[in-house]
This record gives sequence, structure tokens and C-alpha cells, in this order.
Amino acid sequence: MKSKKAIVLLSGGLDSATALCLAKSKGYRCQTLIFDYGQRHKTEISRAVKVARACGCKYQILKINLPWKGSALLDKKIKVPAKIKAGIPVTYVPARNIIFLSFALSLAETIKAQAVFIGAHAQDYSGYPDCRPGFFRAFAKMAQVGLAIKPGIKIIAPLLNKNKAQIIKLGLKLGVPFHLTWSCYQGGKIPCGVCDSCRWRAKGFKEAGISDPLIR
Amino acid sequence: MKSKKAIVLLSGGLDSATALCLAKSKGYRCQTLIFDYGQRHKTEISRAVKVARACGCKYQILKINLPWKGSALLDKKIKVPAKIKAGIPVTYVPARNIIFLSFALSLAETIKAQAVFIGAHAQDYSGYPDCRPGFFRAFAKMAQVGLAIKPGIKIIAPLLNKNKAQIIKLGLKLGVPFHLTWSCYQGGKIPCGVCDSCRWRAKGFKEAGISDPLIR
Repeated sequence: MKSKKAIVLLSGGLDSATALCLAKSKGYRCQTLIFDYGQRHKTEISRAVKVARACGCKYQILKINLPWKGSALLDKKIKVPAKIKAGIPVTYVPARNIIFLSFALSLAETIKAQAVFIGAHAQDYSGYPDCRPGFFRAFAKMAQVGLAIKPGIKIIAPLLNKNKAQIIKLGLKLGVPFHLTWSCYQGGKIPCGVCDSCRWRAKGFKEAGISDPLIR
Repeated sequence: MKSKKAIVLLSGGLDSATALCLAKSKGYRCQTLIFDYGQRHKTEISRAVKVARACGCKYQILKINLPWKGSALLDKKIKVPAKIKAGIPVTYVPARNIIFLSFALSLAETIKAQAVFIGAHAQDYSGYPDCRPGFFRAFAKMAQVGLAIKPGIKIIAPLLNKNKAQIIKLGLKLGVPFHLTWSCYQGGKIPCGVCDSCRWRAKGFKEAGISDPLIR
């Protein structure tokens, strides 16, 4: 039987690392895509590379220009808030997942991969429109008609209905190298512990009943 | 009344120049996006800039890396054929329009534009899957659910049902600066006259009953 191939979007965080290990466990030979899109710090890129290497997967770092900013993740003039607010977060980057998935489709079609994995999850706190189940369904339909490859490329967001604790428990079973992942919005030597992303990670590990190997 | 804003994808060719003039004629204030994606020659980029300037529109040149090649337009080892063949052309770039439109959505959402214009047309000769009406419909649906902006951004491909001659006739009425546009796949000083793109342009001008200002 010919092995299946997948492109996995890798951010350096624990969700995408879990999606990668899950794809591998389903028998996919994985090639990872890491985006350098002007994020506030490069830690997540170097962590993504470490995760890819630890999982024995090829990686490609793709530089993307988004010169129009419009998000706290790209624009240092906008402050990342310490407190979680309702609605669309200031860390929302317009069309980010749409752009990332589009490049993934291009690579997938070029290397004849069958699937693209993305580690998005629809936690309540998150107002990101491009993380919602309806978005992924619509994107998958668009990919079906917009590419030449047949029978088409699947868009798989296997963590979409899981919360952080469930993702961590699953990752633990799959052997995800959590110690290499990075969630903090800041680029310090250790996680800041106060940003949205640090808090949700801490809450996840606490609920999963295990300790975060990043925190000593 | 507040003026409407649109992003127009500009390639340097006559179709996108016509789409730009059409968007302007519909009352849109237009901002153009020009992609530098590793195409075989830079003539089309400089022509796109000239068209934007001639139309009095802002332009942004966006550099895009597609390091995986996979198309005669990006890979100089693959020859662009002089003869038109059935099926997917070797000049097809996997997911190119998907990527271009994704960036356009990001800019459109950032500047609160109401629409994205693209000069694609579904001529029979073209097997590009990302130029088909079904693709644009699916992309527009995806954009509806994948962005934060409400009521959403329209994807307008106003030339989709027109052939080259019809586009040229329309462009003539709209005052499209055809003399600044470039269609040839080669980057010579004058159009090669034998590639697909030159032939279809020549056929279009002939059928429209006017002479191409590029050809003397």
C-alpha cells in the first residue's frame, strides 16, 4: 500500500504539535509548514522547528509579508491584553488561517499529499472566526473545486471539538514533545504566565492533572 | 454617502486592468495588490504598477514565496509550450488564485473594504480550476464565514463570462490603458507572439476589431 502524505501546519504551540503526532499516528507521512509572518517574537518559529525535528518530519519555514498589520500579534504598537475579553481578540490576524491553509493547499497539491492538518480548536474564549467549524467546512469545499488534484485534499482539524485539557491528555498518549512547545504571546526566556495563551495552557495542564514540562 | 472601497488584484495583463477600471466605474475607491511570486519575468509587475498609476490607484507589491515550484510559470526548467493543449496547462500554479485572494481578504478586512475584484475569465482554453465560477462561489462562501468583518467581503469576478474580445471591447469603453498592459509569458522587450497568452490576446483584439497598441 502506498503511504499517505499530509501537510501539517506547525506554530510551535502544543495544539499543532498534537495535530502532527495525531497525523503520524494515523499513518500519514508528514511534511510541516512553519510560517514566519512577522509575529512579535521568533521563539515560536524555533520551537516549531524543534518539534518537527523531534517528530522526524521535514519542515519548511515560509516567510509571509502582511505589511498592513492590523493585529496585536503583528503590530507592536497594539498591546496584547493580559485579560481575556469577549468578542474578536486584538490578537486576531485578518485571514491568517485562510492564508496559511492556502499555502498548505499549494504545497499539498505539488507533492500530491492527501490531507492538510491544522491544530485549531474552537474553545469558547476564542472569537477567531477562522477557527470555527463552519469555516473549515467552507474552506474544504472551496479546496475541492479550486484545485486540479483529484479526489482532492482533505482539510483535517482533528482538535476542533476538544478543549486544552483534552488536547493535552491526547498529546500525552501520542508522545507529543510538550517540553519543546511554546504558547506564550511574549518572547521571553520563560513563559510570562499572564497572557491569554499562558493562562489557557496552565488551565489545560491543571485540568489534565499533569504538570507542564515548560514550568519548573 | 460613504464611498465604497475595493481591493483589485492586478497582474499587469489586460483582464485585471479592465477589472480595475470596471470597479472604479462602479464607484469603488480601489487599492491594488500586485504579487511578486517568482514569476519568470518582472515585466508584468512593472506593467501592473504602471496600470495602477495610470488609473490613479494605490498599489502594494507583495512578495510571496512558493519554494515548491510545480509550474512552468515558476520553474524555468519546465518549458512554456507554444501550442495550447487540452487539460490543466503546465503554467498552472497550484492554489495561486486561492493564495492571492486570501491576501486580498486580509487587506480588505484590515482597511474595511467591501469587495475584492479579480479579472479571471473562464475561457474554454483554460483548464485552471481556480478560474472557474464554482470556485469563486465557494471562495466567497468561505470568506463569509472565515472573517470577522460584517456584512462580509464580496468576491467579484466581473469578467468571468466574457471572452477576450468582449473584455477588450468593454475595456475600450472604460478607457483601460491597454498600451501599458503585458500578456506575454516571456519577458522580452516586445511580446513573443507565439505563447498561449500572446495568441489569445491577438485573437481577442482581432475579434474586437481593433488593433493592439502593444503591437506596431
